[in-house]
Amino acid sequence: MTADTLKLYHGASSPNSRRVRIFLAEKGVAVPLVAVDLGKGEQHGEAYRAINPRRVVPTLVIEDGTSIGEVPAIQRYVEERFPDTPLLGVTPKDKALIAMWDRRMEQEGFAAVMEAIRNRAPGLKDRAIAGPHDYAQIPALVERSRERAVNFMADLDERLKEAAFVAGDRFSVADITALVTIDFAAKAIDLQVPVELQSLKRWYDAVSTRASATA
Amino acid sequence: MTADTLKLYHGASSPNSRRVRIFLAEKGVAVPLVAVDLGKGEQHGEAYRAINPRRVVPTLVIEDGTSIGEVPAIQRYVEERFPDTPLLGVTPKDKALIAMWDRRMEQEGFAAVMEAIRNRAPGLKDRAIAGPHDYAQIPALVERSRERAVNFMADLDERLKEAAFVAGDRFSVADITALVTIDFAAKAIDLQVPVELQSLKRWYDAVSTRASATA
Repeated sequence: MTADTLKLYHGASSPNSRRVRIFLAEKGVAVPLVAVDLGKGEQHGEAYRAINPRRVVPTLVIEDGTSIGEVPAIQRYVEERFPDTPLLGVTPKDKALIAMWDRRMEQEGFAAVMEAIRNRAPGLKDRAIAGPHDYAQIPALVERSRERAVNFMADLDERLKEAAFVAGDRFSVADITALVTIDFAAKAIDLQVPVELQSLKRWYDAVSTRASATA
Repeated sequence: MTADTLKLYHGASSPNSRRVRIFLAEKGVAVPLVAVDLGKGEQHGEAYRAINPRRVVPTLVIEDGTSIGEVPAIQRYVEERFPDTPLLGVTPKDKALIAMWDRRMEQEGFAAVMEAIRNRAPGLKDRAIAGPHDYAQIPALVERSRERAVNFMADLDERLKEAAFVAGDRFSVADITALVTIDFAAKAIDLQVPVELQSLKRWYDAVSTRASATA
């Protein structure tokens, strides 16, 4: 289905943007994309700040011109508008458990990798936290964040010994967040899935070969 | 309404627990509470770890024995089961904007205050991040987190110049997160709302005097 009254502002290599693109692909909803050039700092320009004053991608702009920022908020909107192929759960219990697992994937995995790269990259000096304010990098965070990402992978492996997918027996948004985190860790901080984490490897092979993974 | 087939494990002075208690009070849903003594480390004991292996409060245990952890996941469950007095929005756009604002309140405010206290408190040495893993405190984070909390208040004041409540013209979960953050900042890091932030003060006076605030 094409939802051409919506517009998704995204960064081609932004992992947060990828979380939304995969979500849309899984649901089979095509939303016109508008690329924001993060390398050139386009997110700090006046035009984009009028769309999202937090200066971050992605942002979904809907029919009436309202901007929706923050990945889980965009995903919630898309799920409510296009309920087919639910990725946020169906029953109250489902919805809660998927929200719980998605949040853990984000806080324990995604946020840790993001923190490692933002406190290290020379190009992000004084930009240790995304948003409208400047914050100095804290080098000690780089190592601690990496340690968190390592623990994240080990914990996720344990979880995947007992469940086919992160939140249970069905693919959900929690798998998307975890997949993007694993790929982001490899690319941004050169952290690979250790070979001994066989359940994580089994899951990764399954989710990373879905058609949506290239979105 | 009494929902006595549910049980909420909480800490009396835990700000994350308070987020859920206020949410329930606003909805008029009474859930039996089970106190976990965080001061005595009860969350690390075998009994509680069987309920929540992440060793954090709150946890909602439902009829079939399933544990739901993470504040927004618990709130989602409660909203789905007890839809009266919606706090997470009604229309797709509402739901998305409330999710967006709630997340900003949490990431920019609540998480900053939490980070400041966890990286400073002598009792939390090597427990800088809640959860099953030990992480050393990073003293440089204390100042940066405080700076974030100060910016959070100024940004929220700006927002409240244009809206009665955080997410718009109605009270929502985003107000709960913001209220708990402001009170937590005063108590944990002695950060008060500056007198010149008059819109924030107007909002705080309104939300902190609702009956739910004592929950």
